[in-house]
Amino acid sequence: MGKILLKDVLLDGKSTSVVIAGNRYEQIGGEICGEFAKVIDGKSRLALLPAFYNTHSHLPMTLLRGYADDLELFSWLNDHIWPAEARLTDEDIYWGTRLALLEMLKTGSVFVNDMYWKAAETYRAVSEMGLRAAISYFHLSPQGGLDQDANLQGVTNLRDFAAKFPCDRIMLTRGPHAVYTVSDQAFREIAEFVRQEGCYLHIHASETRKEVEDCRAQHGGLTPIAYLHKFGLLGPKTVLAHCVHLTDEDIQLLAETQTIIATCPVSNMKLCSGMFRWRDAQAAGCRITIGTDGCASNNNLSMLDEMKFAALSAKIQADDPTAASAAEVWTAATVAGARAFGLDAGEIAVGQLADGMLVNTDSPLMVGDYNLISNLVYSADSSLIDTVICDGRVLMTGHHVDSEEEILDKCRQICRRLETARQQNK
Amino acid sequence: MGKILLKDVLLDGKSTSVVIAGNRYEQIGGEICGEFAKVIDGKSRLALLPAFYNTHSHLPMTLLRGYADDLELFSWLNDHIWPAEARLTDEDIYWGTRLALLEMLKTGSVFVNDMYWKAAETYRAVSEMGLRAAISYFHLSPQGGLDQDANLQGVTNLRDFAAKFPCDRIMLTRGPHAVYTVSDQAFREIAEFVRQEGCYLHIHASETRKEVEDCRAQHGGLTPIAYLHKFGLLGPKTVLAHCVHLTDEDIQLLAETQTIIATCPVSNMKLCSGMFRWRDAQAAGCRITIGTDGCASNNNLSMLDEMKFAALSAKIQADDPTAASAAEVWTAATVAGARAFGLDAGEIAVGQLADGMLVNTDSPLMVGDYNLISNLVYSADSSLIDTVICDGRVLMTGHHVDSEEEILDKCRQICRRLETARQQNK
Repeated sequence: MGKILLKDVLLDGKSTSVVIAGNRYEQIGGEICGEFAKVIDGKSRLALLPAFYNTHSHLPMTLLRGYADDLELFSWLNDHIWPAEARLTDEDIYWGTRLALLEMLKTGSVFVNDMYWKAAETYRAVSEMGLRAAISYFHLSPQGGLDQDANLQGVTNLRDFAAKFPCDRIMLTRGPHAVYTVSDQAFREIAEFVRQEGCYLHIHASETRKEVEDCRAQHGGLTPIAYLHKFGLLGPKTVLAHCVHLTDEDIQLLAETQTIIATCPVSNMKLCSGMFRWRDAQAAGCRITIGTDGCASNNNLSMLDEMKFAALSAKIQADDPTAASAAEVWTAATVAGARAFGLDAGEIAVGQLADGMLVNTDSPLMVGDYNLISNLVYSADSSLIDTVICDGRVLMTGHHVDSEEEILDKCRQICRRLETARQQNK
Repeated sequence: MGKILLKDVLLDGKSTSVVIAGNRYEQIGGEICGEFAKVIDGKSRLALLPAFYNTHSHLPMTLLRGYADDLELFSWLNDHIWPAEARLTDEDIYWGTRLALLEMLKTGSVFVNDMYWKAAETYRAVSEMGLRAAISYFHLSPQGGLDQDANLQGVTNLRDFAAKFPCDRIMLTRGPHAVYTVSDQAFREIAEFVRQEGCYLHIHASETRKEVEDCRAQHGGLTPIAYLHKFGLLGPKTVLAHCVHLTDEDIQLLAETQTIIATCPVSNMKLCSGMFRWRDAQAAGCRITIGTDGCASNNNLSMLDEMKFAALSAKIQADDPTAASAAEVWTAATVAGARAFGLDAGEIAVGQLADGMLVNTDSPLMVGDYNLISNLVYSADSSLIDTVICDGRVLMTGHHVDSEEEILDKCRQICRRLETARQQNK
């Protein structure tokens, strides 16, 4: 694979040129020479920035964007989302993931930490489309151990597929759904599993008030955070999605164990779960990253949207306009997400993995131009994202992805089928 | 001015063609014949939709986007915003408004209800750029009557300019700043002024808890809403920006008088003012419209962003995921805003004013494609807005506005000057 030259891009406010060799940044500034397989001209108006690392999602649910909104949680799940999900075939999951990955590129993300059924199909889509992902061995079964997993075949399929088609942009994680859908026995087995495999754990935790209250009632007063800690499941390789309802002790425990928090502010507001205590967690030294959650409760995968909601919900939650500054939120959405998953990425520097995006600064959304990071967090949208690079490959340029027409066509067909089935079952 | 043909655009899910004659929609569907000065081909993938009506802003503050963020209100205003505003010349206001209008077009808005100093410059920019606006005779002076207005010259300039350059897309309103910055005497004179002129009133009201508490303390227990009512200033030609801290009695009064509420959810969250009681106001029959506020506290003018924040903040505020449905929020951002200002607009129908936008549905942000309005409120961003039409004129097409390079250049120069002055005064 030949080298790539990013010519006259803006970096820290100055126009410079950047060389990518293999999957790493090789040179920034200085005299540029040699031959290049590809040259992208930033014309001193495209800013080279880290791309986004989305630390919690359910990609295939992108097929259910706008399928059911503005409903009570119980009706939303029982009457709409679960019946639709039951109709998704392996092939649907594959195309739904491709749709999600397309949207991720359009909105500047190169990595997702995903949890869903039939994850071998997610693996297939990610490996083909060139992005990075952490993909879970999913487990949801309130009774019994891991052998009771209704999704056991899915786990086996994922393991087999990953062994057959190794992809160094993808890591496999253990993904039990939540403390209220997984048994004590399974948690013990999971603790053993992650120890043996050395893999990450990915779980929903303390998302709703009811979850915390039920956990306390069933487990001798333990919060979901304390309950997971009992199994030795907190730590720097554990990603907890949501973390809305945290006690002071929970926050302290998350900070001490360097557990990774994936806050999902849009989903938490849309479903009325509550608002993450960003300021308190930040002050305690917690590791904060940002996820979009799935499209059924967001309804997009834009980390740009998510950053603005993260900052503003943190301010309202703390009643403090200085909470969750633009710089803090930007860090959480980029380098903190990359580092959480052990990636040498999220910063534009020689030797780092060549992930990044080129953002058009020549737009009214970017003027006043006093503070690029503030503009990205509070003003920008995906119309400004011109190019996305992942692992040294240009996956989007000119805001266009090669396969997008085919993906949209396929997914619209799936949506027609789901909608027809819903109408027939009314 | 010749007719315009919008060929094969999506309307209510079907591909159809639409004719604009003069400044109105003349024909929708059916056999299309005749000659057209302009034809825009929607290729059955651009959806024709109402444009947005932004009912509260301070356009020239777009020059201060990202100038100061994440600060306590007092420091934000005293140390940053006010010193910068004091440096703005008439010409700066003119270019700052053009920048704002450019951004409005890029994000799908055709109307703004604006309040700012030196409003003759705002009038000039709007009249040249082809959008619609309500522009205020601004008044801010805690003592004395209207003759004490430090901005009196600005009022005279606006009146003279509007008389000299009449523009039927612009209406003039009376814009006292707020109950805490305008005297009793001035309010009495303002009540007389709006009666005589038959014009709209535009004022900030019940934005912060402190404003309400101070008003009660100073005015015999009256809330800002009740205090304005005392002067006869509530009614269907009064626009109250923010309305965050409302009592049940306030909501009843606003509903009974059919006063127009301009909720500004992003600004209210960013400055920690609080969250508007959307569900309660909607249930009471209040007239709800949406404004972006100025760019210094948002930091953009995107009604797409604002709709998502309106819906989600309403849900969290009411602890009810069914509050502020996508349809309610869409109505507030479009037809309710237009109707509030007496415009026959905000719906695509024969005889209505020819305002509207063409939105690209061929994007991952719009698939699943079950519910167009849900996708617009919860998923879309300005990357999808291809064309904006106002008063029968195409002001943007292909997401490009003719004058944008000149506007961005001029405004970046102003920003450099403001930043240099700030550095020198440190």
